[in-house]
Amino acid sequence: MRIGTDDEAADKPLLAALRGQPVWPPPLWLMRQAGRYLPEYRAVRARVPDFIALCTTPELAAEVTLQPIRRYRFDAAILFSDILMLPWALGHGLAFREGEGPVLPPLRTAAEVERLDPERARGAIAPILETVRRVRDGLAAEGFARTALIGFAGAPFTVACYMVEGGGSKEFAATRTMAYTRPDLFAALMARLTDATIAYLTAQVEAGAETVMLFDSWAGVLSPQLFRRHAIAPARRIVAALRASFPRLPVIGFPRLAGTMLGEYAAGTGVDGVGVDTATELGQARRLVGAQVALQGNIDPLALLAGGAALADAADDALAAARAGRFVVNLGHGILPPTPPEHVAALVARVRAAA
Amino acid sequence: MRIGTDDEAADKPLLAALRGQPVWPPPLWLMRQAGRYLPEYRAVRARVPDFIALCTTPELAAEVTLQPIRRYRFDAAILFSDILMLPWALGHGLAFREGEGPVLPPLRTAAEVERLDPERARGAIAPILETVRRVRDGLAAEGFARTALIGFAGAPFTVACYMVEGGGSKEFAATRTMAYTRPDLFAALMARLTDATIAYLTAQVEAGAETVMLFDSWAGVLSPQLFRRHAIAPARRIVAALRASFPRLPVIGFPRLAGTMLGEYAAGTGVDGVGVDTATELGQARRLVGAQVALQGNIDPLALLAGGAALADAADDALAAARAGRFVVNLGHGILPPTPPEHVAALVARVRAAA
Repeated sequence: MRIGTDDEAADKPLLAALRGQPVWPPPLWLMRQAGRYLPEYRAVRARVPDFIALCTTPELAAEVTLQPIRRYRFDAAILFSDILMLPWALGHGLAFREGEGPVLPPLRTAAEVERLDPERARGAIAPILETVRRVRDGLAAEGFARTALIGFAGAPFTVACYMVEGGGSKEFAATRTMAYTRPDLFAALMARLTDATIAYLTAQVEAGAETVMLFDSWAGVLSPQLFRRHAIAPARRIVAALRASFPRLPVIGFPRLAGTMLGEYAAGTGVDGVGVDTATELGQARRLVGAQVALQGNIDPLALLAGGAALADAADDALAAARAGRFVVNLGHGILPPTPPEHVAALVARVRAAA
Repeated sequence: MRIGTDDEAADKPLLAALRGQPVWPPPLWLMRQAGRYLPEYRAVRARVPDFIALCTTPELAAEVTLQPIRRYRFDAAILFSDILMLPWALGHGLAFREGEGPVLPPLRTAAEVERLDPERARGAIAPILETVRRVRDGLAAEGFARTALIGFAGAPFTVACYMVEGGGSKEFAATRTMAYTRPDLFAALMARLTDATIAYLTAQVEAGAETVMLFDSWAGVLSPQLFRRHAIAPARRIVAALRASFPRLPVIGFPRLAGTMLGEYAAGTGVDGVGVDTATELGQARRLVGAQVALQGNIDPLALLAGGAALADAADDALAAARAGRFVVNLGHGILPPTPPEHVAALVARVRAAA
């Protein structure tokens, strides 16, 4: 285990900001900063038959994780992987079909929940942990002393969405219907995923991740009652378990499209930072979560794609929020593949030049 | 023009609640209360070749508007129509394909904006206005003296979404990209739609609508900056124009998934009531909009589909909010077609029996 000492952390703007220390310019990284918008990513991607092979080949996964750091010297590298690698490791089927997104067997029975195998996962995640180690070493070897390494997992509800639905969906109606009409079955699935997420994130920190982020991309489809039960409660359990093992570990939660529930999420889970989606107004987000939690967001990925005045305005809004409290500049959702890399460079320059 | 007198309005719980008068039990109606979940609707639908024919045959559109009132004595009847009937009336193409949703020619040029024809719309909406008149007469003739008639339109941004995209979409990226990269073109489209919406809603009120609702179903995909420009500003102009003609007309705005922007929307537009989507916490919504605006929502349509304890819990949350301020019980989104009609009856009974 190699958790950074406080002296090391003080030199890493992301960790400092998450711990409430003043940092200027604000730390900056972008969701999906390693990805298809970069030609060097596409070159590596072409060397493997599919996306899962890329995630489970440590040499290549570490390489694509480091690529955007070399270009932009972001304040964070985030493990290149996918939130569905955890159900994959647990033995649930997973395939990524070109242009169609993930395809999984739709989970509908208690027997299928029972079959999710934590023992199997322990072995299956080995290459992912090896990627974490290689990235941590690579950051040091290439002189990125200020870049923190983020581990991550999908939050149990969002992972359950894909498992129950059998893939992506607009509103995840089958998943929410299961939560309403078969609450015991759904609770069993959520409990197993929550346990597995704790083990998975613990292993990532032991391998070298310096902070972790929990992506609840579909939390926004939940009513407040279900949000409390299936977004806040599992995240609280995950944060508490990680804190018990790593008292100084900063944790970021991203309940996307939580809207008015953002404050309850921050207070109820105990995270150090919350991801803020593009639709959320940053002043209201600050009012909801209070001064003691960092906000991370929320530039519109379409403004980054558009560039020019749209991007400058969006960046300036984020910088204004950063002047007012704990803040990490990021997008409100992942980079879109057609984004010109020079727009990313323009954003980085604007944030780094901020007075 | 037959706007209800204050004496009439006092007997209609919906209008009273929107005007801030105490009403108990709270008024109740449901988005898409006329629709496929009702066998009597499906019987009428089978008599016409397509959805547009149903919307433009006053006898049948009025019949399906009245059907749920006969079953459930809702506090509102809402004109049976579709938000895309306005671009259709303006001469933009529209077709509804079974299981695929609306299909429109994707609008991309200034010439296509110029071609939208308000003069044509004035004639094309005649059967819709005739439906309004027939429903108002039908409510009186059938003894529904307490049921108010709601007219409606899509908000300009949501209508623009379908026109630019050429149909439905998950995130309406083409529309938002146009707003960022061709702001003048998008502003011209929005201005023309806003003018047309004012004329359309004015005509509905003159035909007998007692309140109007503006559906901005996709407002939630906008960043705060774009939300102010394309959701709040057009709605403010529409509300102001309606107020100038009909000083006592209550107006409901529904910026779906507005989240933290709900307060700015209410204050900035001047609406009397705001629709609240299922994801929004009602206590936070009240705090955002203040005491002078009615909330309308926000039972999860999937809880209504599930019935039983899930529905009872959701109804009780809405009733608790109704005890705390101006409130209209509704769903957070439209009724889902597989919803059992007896679940709707159970919801109505629970709300009407509320102490």
